[in-house]
Amino acid sequence: MDSRQPPPSRTVFFVSDGTGITAETFGNSILNQFTIRTRHVRRPFIDTADKAHQVVREINHTAELEGRRPIVFLTLIDREVLEVVKTHSRGLVMDMFGTFIAPLESEFGMTSNHRVGRFSDVARSQQYTDRIEAINFSLEHDDGQSAKNLAEADVILIGVSRSGKTPTSLYLAMQHGIKAANYPLIPEDFERGRFPASLAPYKKKCFGLTIDPMRLHQIRSERRPNSGYASLENCRREVKDAELMMRREGIAWLSSTHKSIEEIATTILSDVRPDRLTY
Amino acid sequence: MDSRQPPPSRTVFFVSDGTGITAETFGNSILNQFTIRTRHVRRPFIDTADKAHQVVREINHTAELEGRRPIVFLTLIDREVLEVVKTHSRGLVMDMFGTFIAPLESEFGMTSNHRVGRFSDVARSQQYTDRIEAINFSLEHDDGQSAKNLAEADVILIGVSRSGKTPTSLYLAMQHGIKAANYPLIPEDFERGRFPASLAPYKKKCFGLTIDPMRLHQIRSERRPNSGYASLENCRREVKDAELMMRREGIAWLSSTHKSIEEIATTILSDVRPDRLTY
Repeated sequence: MDSRQPPPSRTVFFVSDGTGITAETFGNSILNQFTIRTRHVRRPFIDTADKAHQVVREINHTAELEGRRPIVFLTLIDREVLEVVKTHSRGLVMDMFGTFIAPLESEFGMTSNHRVGRFSDVARSQQYTDRIEAINFSLEHDDGQSAKNLAEADVILIGVSRSGKTPTSLYLAMQHGIKAANYPLIPEDFERGRFPASLAPYKKKCFGLTIDPMRLHQIRSERRPNSGYASLENCRREVKDAELMMRREGIAWLSSTHKSIEEIATTILSDVRPDRLTY
Repeated sequence: MDSRQPPPSRTVFFVSDGTGITAETFGNSILNQFTIRTRHVRRPFIDTADKAHQVVREINHTAELEGRRPIVFLTLIDREVLEVVKTHSRGLVMDMFGTFIAPLESEFGMTSNHRVGRFSDVARSQQYTDRIEAINFSLEHDDGQSAKNLAEADVILIGVSRSGKTPTSLYLAMQHGIKAANYPLIPEDFERGRFPASLAPYKKKCFGLTIDPMRLHQIRSERRPNSGYASLENCRREVKDAELMMRREGIAWLSSTHKSIEEIATTILSDVRPDRLTY
């Protein structure tokens, strides 16, 4: 490709009768497969024909302005709302629900209920309550704050400061309803030469996070520049000591350096709670 | 339907070369449209033909055991891996990527790059760093812990204790990279009769959460049964006072009672940071 030319660009709409988060996450995975610059517009809570017509005007206006048809990802349940967008918009419409609902209707031998607002039911379900409870648990057990009720934890993440424990525990709680405590491994733990006493009874539930020392150095330097804590030498030593300890104690661990929170969380689930991948 | 008969059931596989979270979230939205009991099996990181064959054996074994073909949602990029599952599995295959990639290839006039492991690049992107920073900010500004750097906040959630502020702030940070502080409105704030001084300069960034007093009573009772704090009378008074204050101060608010975290977060974004719906 001619490097002086910017890659072609396109506007992408995510139109949903709910939050549009599913449409957006899924659409992004697909668009990531193309070398193309995109501008994203999310239009949530489109649940009446009126609102649909308004979005159609916006789509068609964009088409006219840009001289190219926008890409339109739809997660719309209501047939009337769906028809408005499909019939009137001058975009390339990707009907993400309709495409898969039709074959399922025939497979199950039943029609789908075209019900909007599924979340409203969700908000009071047991699964939802568990999720909120897990978030509270993970917050109360962040950064080794409390050794109370560790018996209740589904997972205890361990690792040196800033290895990614906190975001991972919160993600596990929020996305999977997992009660994830986390506990920092500090130089004192390494000097003592034994596994932290409060964790010892729960070794089977522990999972370690490690990180490339250079990356750790960068992260810590943003917080406390030029400190001993952030120095490359100290990062190297802490990471080495932590890995030695985890190896010695037979604790599964992974490096967070090149992984997203989602990937780390899924790997931990596969290892510590494989049952949570089936439900 | 005969109420003595349980609804029909089906096993659903989510097979992905990544975490499978997209496949699962999206598949769930679709399955929710049917009155059918399902058992879910997530199989993440299926990125070789060998692993694909293993999953195919599992799918076919299930088909045999249950006498019904499982539903199989796929988010697989690699053509070889995809072909193994599509050709050999005796499930109803929903190829979620392929279905939409083909029309986009023709629209964009280019082939997709069939790249697996998109997250590995993501983990070091600016967007990802912002997300982690937002999580740290939201944690440090949870429950009015710190009035420091409130100028940096994108949003400040206010509301009575247990109205849903903490999970919502964390979700905004984690999912949208929004720096969301939260601040509890307590009886002393209402007695004083004026808006909390530390928030006054940032009124425009404030968003209120309220909740049905009966629901609040239930939630608080789980934490502190039979306390004055949890009593229905007290919950009624606090909620009434908080709503009065928000109305008086002209602060937008919504009720979290029948809403999921995702819905609350999207509504807040639409109101306080509509720019975050376009990027």
